[in-house]
Amino acid sequence: MRRDIRIVDTTLREGEQFSGAYFSAEQRHEIVRLLDAVGVPMIEVPSPIASPETQQAVRDLCALNTRARIVAHVRCAQADVQAALATPVHGINLFYGTSTELRSYSHGKRIEQIIHDAVPLIKHIRQEGRYVRFSAEDAFRSDLVDLLTVFDAVVDAGVLRIGLPDTVGIAKPREVERLVRLCTERYPGVGIEFHGHNDTGCAIANTVAALEGGADCLDTTVLGIGERNGIASLSGLISQMYIHYPEILRRYDLTKLPLLDQYVADCVHIAIPFNSPITAPGAFTHRAGIHTKAVLNNPRAYEVLNPQDFGLVRNVEVGTRYTGRYAVG
Amino acid sequence: MRRDIRIVDTTLREGEQFSGAYFSAEQRHEIVRLLDAVGVPMIEVPSPIASPETQQAVRDLCALNTRARIVAHVRCAQADVQAALATPVHGINLFYGTSTELRSYSHGKRIEQIIHDAVPLIKHIRQEGRYVRFSAEDAFRSDLVDLLTVFDAVVDAGVLRIGLPDTVGIAKPREVERLVRLCTERYPGVGIEFHGHNDTGCAIANTVAALEGGADCLDTTVLGIGERNGIASLSGLISQMYIHYPEILRRYDLTKLPLLDQYVADCVHIAIPFNSPITAPGAFTHRAGIHTKAVLNNPRAYEVLNPQDFGLVRNVEVGTRYTGRYAVG
Ligand SMILES: O=C(O)CCC(=O)C(=O)O
Ligand SMILES: O=C(O)CCC(=O)C(=O)O
Ligand SMILES: [Cu+2]
Ligand SMILES: [Cu+2]
Repeated sequence: MRRDIRIVDTTLREGEQFSGAYFSAEQRHEIVRLLDAVGVPMIEVPSPIASPETQQAVRDLCALNTRARIVAHVRCAQADVQAALATPVHGINLFYGTSTELRSYSHGKRIEQIIHDAVPLIKHIRQEGRYVRFSAEDAFRSDLVDLLTVFDAVVDAGVLRIGLPDTVGIAKPREVERLVRLCTERYPGVGIEFHGHNDTGCAIANTVAALEGGADCLDTTVLGIGERNGIASLSGLISQMYIHYPEILRRYDLTKLPLLDQYVADCVHIAIPFNSPITAPGAFTHRAGIHTKAVLNNPRAYEVLNPQDFGLVRNVEVGTRYTGRYAVG
Repeated sequence: MRRDIRIVDTTLREGEQFSGAYFSAEQRHEIVRLLDAVGVPMIEVPSPIASPETQQAVRDLCALNTRARIVAHVRCAQADVQAALATPVHGINLFYGTSTELRSYSHGKRIEQIIHDAVPLIKHIRQEGRYVRFSAEDAFRSDLVDLLTVFDAVVDAGVLRIGLPDTVGIAKPREVERLVRLCTERYPGVGIEFHGHNDTGCAIANTVAALEGGADCLDTTVLGIGERNGIASLSGLISQMYIHYPEILRRYDLTKLPLLDQYVADCVHIAIPFNSPITAPGAFTHRAGIHTKAVLNNPRAYEVLNPQDFGLVRNVEVGTRYTGRYAVG
């Protein structure tokens, strides 16, 4: 893969929309430090306009001087952009709902109004020398003409990247790949970001499909926490890259991943789900007799990820009362 | 979709390979009853050869006289097939590892030997008037010539369905669709089954890709429990069908799904993972201010599944101490 592929972790923004999540200042710092230690190059934080505390929190995170760049997630409103520019963030992730559903039931704006609001803000942010991305919220339920009309305008205004979020988790991999490819061909001069919700269980596959369609920025959260049942998880995306695109992970330290997942699980008072790639308690546990015998022979028999690469160990359940039962399974 | 699409639930077989799962007789009965109430048409159970208790358990499940058909998961060995035929199961799901990895580190057999073992058993099961399927374990790491050589022989022997399991969770949707389509074209007279592990987070998307490639049988377990970090979850597959292929679910009672998921979670002593489609505690919880405002206006703004269709209610977090913070998010 020739492009420079970036994971954008939004645990502190999307992740804090998870029911029950409320990170303390200390937790936010530790999450950013761990993300930086893993090697995630971009971290999204909430909009500084939310409150004076949020503005201070964003300043504090910028002051950590991580290798990872800090970007704020900001509505297309002048005051919101000003509040973000008053902090030393690397840049601003703008968003605006473009689907009929969001235009009707959320903000009530027409396409011309969206363009009218977004374009001057993008120009202003660029004049200030900061990075700016524009996302069409609910892109996968947006009419293609509406979507491209908005993108044409923001690209023309000098945006550096456009975002295609599957806000309601409705997309399938093939559609994601197709829409992303269409945009990479129409807008060769800008980057493409994808953000996939998990309502129908395809967030990770959709994010990989976006990568294959030409996206260069991929959103994750630690464990996949977020609104409703969340988005693509960092470990899930990494498990795919590990197998299919290892060159992307060359500068990552994957041994820090279990620590990060466990830390965030503790912060939001959940166990790491059993279905999580890599860091689930049983991800490297082998149980059926046929499996355990083969794995003791050679782990490759039933493993495509090597637990050692993540600082983990495999667990072969032999000699338990289940072995007999599963000797044929 | 013209084909008759069947979900095969294997919670009692694959699911019991989940670390910590050990179902009591009462639990097995209740799981089968709930699966039957939901409308799942096929249920896979462990091999009766495992122990006299397993053989009795399989008999007891058959005696429940469910609409769902009970099939046993059986190695390609004569004694194993005999033990299964000694019970009143509807049919037998045979399997045999065809990848180099499994042939080298698991059973040590060559392709000719696999065919030599499988063919007479398939003919025998058909002579006994039972259903028989043959699965090429680890199909997605198998050499295509090896795979098709085995399938050619078992189809010739009269097998009714062939299975393509992604045993190690390495496949991506595009590859699954391609291999399934290749098999539907080469073997138009038999059904195709898919079974997808979740090691890299794509089990649900891969299972939907198999459906789109022409598979007519799709494996799930309740919550997705299984070896390592499991396989496609029943609720996950149903959430996809609900949106993209609702006609498949016409005879399902989706309001029983939350009960089933909770029951199995209790049996294996876990919470329903937050990332589960439909039945996760927060699957219909809206939190960010932008989201809650719009959802109170019209739930379609941020919902593509209607919680009422599953006997559930939405949860709009307003007036909590978070509302202010998320008013801009
Ligand atoms: O700004 C974005 O790209 C994503 C916003 C968001 O969380 C979503 O649309 O789900
Ligand atoms: O028999 C099958 O199709 C599936 C066996 C199995 O559990 C697997 O290969 O992961
Ligand atoms: Cu989101
Ligand atoms: Cu399996």
